[in-house]
Amino acid sequence: MNIRTDLALESAELYWEMGEGHEIPGVSFEEEEKEAVRITRVRVLGEEGEKAVGKPRGNYITIEMPSLLESESEIFLQAARCLSNELTAIIKKPKLTLVAGLGNSEITPDSLGPKVIPRLVVTRHLFTHMPDAVSHLSPVCALAPGVLGVTGIETGEIIKGVCERVRPDLVIVVDALASRKTERVSTTIQIADTGISPGSGVGNKRKAVNQETVGVPVIAVGVPMVVDAATIANDTIDLVIDTLIKEAEGDFYTMLQNLDREEKHALIRASLPKGMGGMMVTPKDIDTLSDKIAHVISMGLNFALHPHITEEEIASFAG
Amino acid sequence: MNIRTDLALESAELYWEMGEGHEIPGVSFEEEEKEAVRITRVRVLGEEGEKAVGKPRGNYITIEMPSLLESESEIFLQAARCLSNELTAIIKKPKLTLVAGLGNSEITPDSLGPKVIPRLVVTRHLFTHMPDAVSHLSPVCALAPGVLGVTGIETGEIIKGVCERVRPDLVIVVDALASRKTERVSTTIQIADTGISPGSGVGNKRKAVNQETVGVPVIAVGVPMVVDAATIANDTIDLVIDTLIKEAEGDFYTMLQNLDREEKHALIRASLPKGMGGMMVTPKDIDTLSDKIAHVISMGLNFALHPHITEEEIASFAG
Amino acid sequence: MNIRTDLALESAELYWEMGEGHEIPGVSFEEEEKEAVRITRVRVLGEEGEKAVGKPRGNYITIEMPSLLESESEIFLQAARCLSNELTAIIKKPKLTLVAGLGNSEITPDSLGPKVIPRLVVTRHLFTHMPDAVSHLSPVCALAPGVLGVTGIETGEIIKGVCERVRPDLVIVVDALASRKTERVSTTIQIADTGISPGSGVGNKRKAVNQETVGVPVIAVGVPMVVDAATIANDTIDLVIDTLIKEAEGDFYTMLQNLDREEKHALIRASLPKGMGGMMVTPKDIDTLSDKIAHVISMGLNFALHPHITEEEIASFAG
Amino acid sequence: MNIRTDLALESAELYWEMGEGHEIPGVSFEEEEKEAVRITRVRVLGEEGEKAVGKPRGNYITIEMPSLLESESEIFLQAARCLSNELTAIIKKPKLTLVAGLGNSEITPDSLGPKVIPRLVVTRHLFTHMPDAVSHLSPVCALAPGVLGVTGIETGEIIKGVCERVRPDLVIVVDALASRKTERVSTTIQIADTGISPGSGVGNKRKAVNQETVGVPVIAVGVPMVVDAATIANDTIDLVIDTLIKEAEGDFYTMLQNLDREEKHALIRASLPKGMGGMMVTPKDIDTLSDKIAHVISMGLNFALHPHITEEEIASFAG
Repeated sequence: MNIRTDLALESAELYWEMGEGHEIPGVSFEEEEKEAVRITRVRVLGEEGEKAVGKPRGNYITIEMPSLLESESEIFLQAARCLSNELTAIIKKPKLTLVAGLGNSEITPDSLGPKVIPRLVVTRHLFTHMPDAVSHLSPVCALAPGVLGVTGIETGEIIKGVCERVRPDLVIVVDALASRKTERVSTTIQIADTGISPGSGVGNKRKAVNQETVGVPVIAVGVPMVVDAATIANDTIDLVIDTLIKEAEGDFYTMLQNLDREEKHALIRASLPKGMGGMMVTPKDIDTLSDKIAHVISMGLNFALHPHITEEEIASFAG
Repeated sequence: MNIRTDLALESAELYWEMGEGHEIPGVSFEEEEKEAVRITRVRVLGEEGEKAVGKPRGNYITIEMPSLLESESEIFLQAARCLSNELTAIIKKPKLTLVAGLGNSEITPDSLGPKVIPRLVVTRHLFTHMPDAVSHLSPVCALAPGVLGVTGIETGEIIKGVCERVRPDLVIVVDALASRKTERVSTTIQIADTGISPGSGVGNKRKAVNQETVGVPVIAVGVPMVVDAATIANDTIDLVIDTLIKEAEGDFYTMLQNLDREEKHALIRASLPKGMGGMMVTPKDIDTLSDKIAHVISMGLNFALHPHITEEEIASFAG
Repeated sequence: MNIRTDLALESAELYWEMGEGHEIPGVSFEEEEKEAVRITRVRVLGEEGEKAVGKPRGNYITIEMPSLLESESEIFLQAARCLSNELTAIIKKPKLTLVAGLGNSEITPDSLGPKVIPRLVVTRHLFTHMPDAVSHLSPVCALAPGVLGVTGIETGEIIKGVCERVRPDLVIVVDALASRKTERVSTTIQIADTGISPGSGVGNKRKAVNQETVGVPVIAVGVPMVVDAATIANDTIDLVIDTLIKEAEGDFYTMLQNLDREEKHALIRASLPKGMGGMMVTPKDIDTLSDKIAHVISMGLNFALHPHITEEEIASFAG
Repeated sequence: MNIRTDLALESAELYWEMGEGHEIPGVSFEEEEKEAVRITRVRVLGEEGEKAVGKPRGNYITIEMPSLLESESEIFLQAARCLSNELTAIIKKPKLTLVAGLGNSEITPDSLGPKVIPRLVVTRHLFTHMPDAVSHLSPVCALAPGVLGVTGIETGEIIKGVCERVRPDLVIVVDALASRKTERVSTTIQIADTGISPGSGVGNKRKAVNQETVGVPVIAVGVPMVVDAATIANDTIDLVIDTLIKEAEGDFYTMLQNLDREEKHALIRASLPKGMGGMMVTPKDIDTLSDKIAHVISMGLNFALHPHITEEEIASFAG
């Protein structure tokens, strides 16, 4: 299946949809709802879990907050506090944190990471130059490494090179994700203590940005900003087949039941419009949305990394 | 059917797809291919034609140029010249032209119109202030009226208000369009001598920007920049049903044949993911693409409006 | 003198500096200080006053707030409230207000006006489409008319054309101003009930945007964003001459006293570096500053135009 | 003297202006004029030269091209070719080049470096993934490291960290410079084979980006985008004093001759407007200018680094 999702929660949902039972071997779940927020904690435990959901073992926290689409500043603050709380729970007071904003600043739906960086309260250099001004803050530095197509260098290589010089003991990577469901776009935050590991451990190690490659814990914070157009088409196909099956009676039902879903998919996908590969599905107001989400994420990081900071101080530090 | 397309050509294609025969009553076609360009001229002749394709009577020229996705400056120039030629053929040497760039400059896929305006060779004021410098050019003025949601004023009202003061004898509106097919996004230019007339004449007259409402001929130049996400889903449904029908044999075939397509659509659409309505499908590099297309359209307009202008002069005029 | 300033307060200051006494005939002053804000109310009374300060008769309110350079959101809110209070005092509850954001959105220090427009709570169209949602608000519409160099149409003509269609009974124009003093850039707001009248009534009437040309009261709200580079040089010359005079003794003193300041100016200015004319002096962080000031001005306008609106509502309305 | 200039040529001009003779010990000059271009080659030879002009020993090539202010694409191409030729003369065919675009992408006059990066033909990763497509090109990678205030990490540290991983044998840094003269802004390109060495070798070694700190040759390519406002004031003071001296006769002349220029400067500077320090002088159209210059510099680098590349290929590679 080439459904593209960066959310562990959606990988689990896919597992369920394929009708393989609700229990996923090697994967545990925990759900919490408070007010407008739903927090799901997915724990991938061992090799069996890795295979089932296609993600490396570790903890994946999903904060779902549909009201983020509204523009009220109180909701933004609430989301930032929620992100901060979840981060604080898994961060051991680091001596120096490096935040890396991944993505391409010139492609709006991919610009979340680079947009977060200038809004962070970055202090590492001030501990040398004006230590009194930052004595109540923690040492933080930041980087927007760019993307392979623009730099010719793997993001992971740049981060590793910089880590070897500045020696952080925690790396947080911020990235725009792809979701499978349009309703999750810009309303969901995923925190993963596995870093970024394409192909779930197997495959290209060079591309991973995780403890193994960087040498210190790597936490990934991401927000879905797009759905692949092919995923929309794919999901629609499933929907059609499901609806037909539900509606069907008698012989028709039997026939559809016997359809090999995979075979049908392959067939149909082959006739999908060309050029779909380069397309993405985004909210119509992605330009302003990506600014707002960058604001929420940077606030959450600032609160988590500097527990004693005030909102006013954040405003006076960041651009 | 709520398939959204702004292209007359696609309206005709929809007619054909619904299996109602290739001849469309009251609509004539003319096709021309040269090198990498396909030009289709759709003429909607009378009430019958208006009903069939849901567009007001008039001429719709579609320039399709898949190679526009490549970044070569020669191809851009070729597209600009092609647009210029088609415009020149339908423009009667105007005494003063007003170009209106419709759309929202803060929403990338809707920013084509506003982006074209600052690249135009605008001369109206210079004919008063420094007539010698522009004696070989034509009087042109321009306007980016903004969108209803931002201004609280219908685009048409703003254009009419300005027209009553500056008294152009030709209005050209530039706008981003919605297409039904991903492969037409940013590769197709439509020129319509009907202006912009939502609801094909029927319905809200206030919203139309055409000869009837403005008082002078209105030519619309547009490029598809998005596909509605719902359209993608819709088209996929058709594809699935078509494929199933093709594949089906025996009883299954008969059954599917008997399915009322409309009924199925309604059913399936009802179960489509919520939030799809606010989503759009765009190329991943829409940010740079919209700049490039704005460049092509403005060059084409500059060539058409100022027949004696050189590329160098355009560069030195526009920002 | 070709010192460029758009602030009536600075015109008065120039008068004083030229040593013509503190009383300015036909001009009255009123000053108020509260906390971090200094409000000066300059009233130009008749022809004598117009000549003395080179501004048409009317009221000019200057809000000076050096702390605006700090990034604290509380100070922004305070500035917005202060602007709102001053506006409320001179606005007679209008039936429909048109806000026009003057300037060039593509030139950062001139982009204040266009940047304010999308942040306004614009409601005119909603009174037709969804009157219940806006029953506690006032009818407001908005426009970013662009600049003469880009549109070929005088800003005033566009505003007049639109006014004739939408018939507001109040026009507010927002514009970036030029100041004479670097310390006023982005820290001072001027409110003038004279509209915008280049050349103080004399000269080009077409360019004015005021009650006389538009037909309804026009209030201008502006913030200095630049100082002309030539003004900096000019002021420095004065400073040098003043310092030399102060320092001089004996014959030297007498000599300098006898220097005709105007003559020296002319001489020196002739030898000023070429190209200075196209240069401007701006803060190094003008890109972020202009966003912040646009935020303050739009908040102030929203508070003044919609007395019952809340901050949350503003956030949910504007982009 | 706190005159700020990043151009070695202007350092030499300052030396001359201070009246210390035309020969500068330890500094050699070479001038070449062809058509609209003036190329000056300043060579700082030893310690004596370093002291005289305050720049580390090495070669400084200045390309002056006033016509760059015009918008003609031919002139841009000519400037790019000229930059390419000068670079080619000092580059020994490198195995891998890293181009670092210094500066802050969010501050327009400082954004030249970051703007150049996405326009480069970057190939390093393609030599692995699709070697045939790039066999006629050279291995190039690129990086926009950001600025200390945003990242908390010295630019030099980031470059060194990345160099240790990707092992280039040539580093080219692109940066916006400060000039002393408004007419040089955006019309002059400086190439220095000394890299970037604040404080001419003395002082903060950590901040330098040069062969000594990075381990491979570092070439700096820069274009003045601003003049310090204080520099404008300073230069104006000199101008005034010079003009007064020229005009003066008799006793007055003698007196002015006896004025200690330094003493006067100090006195006058003390009374300069506060807040001048945060101000800069830029062209009014800096937004579009910085795009154009980024285009010229990236073209020049692409031509120099990939001798067999065509303009079309550059367009199809870069964004």
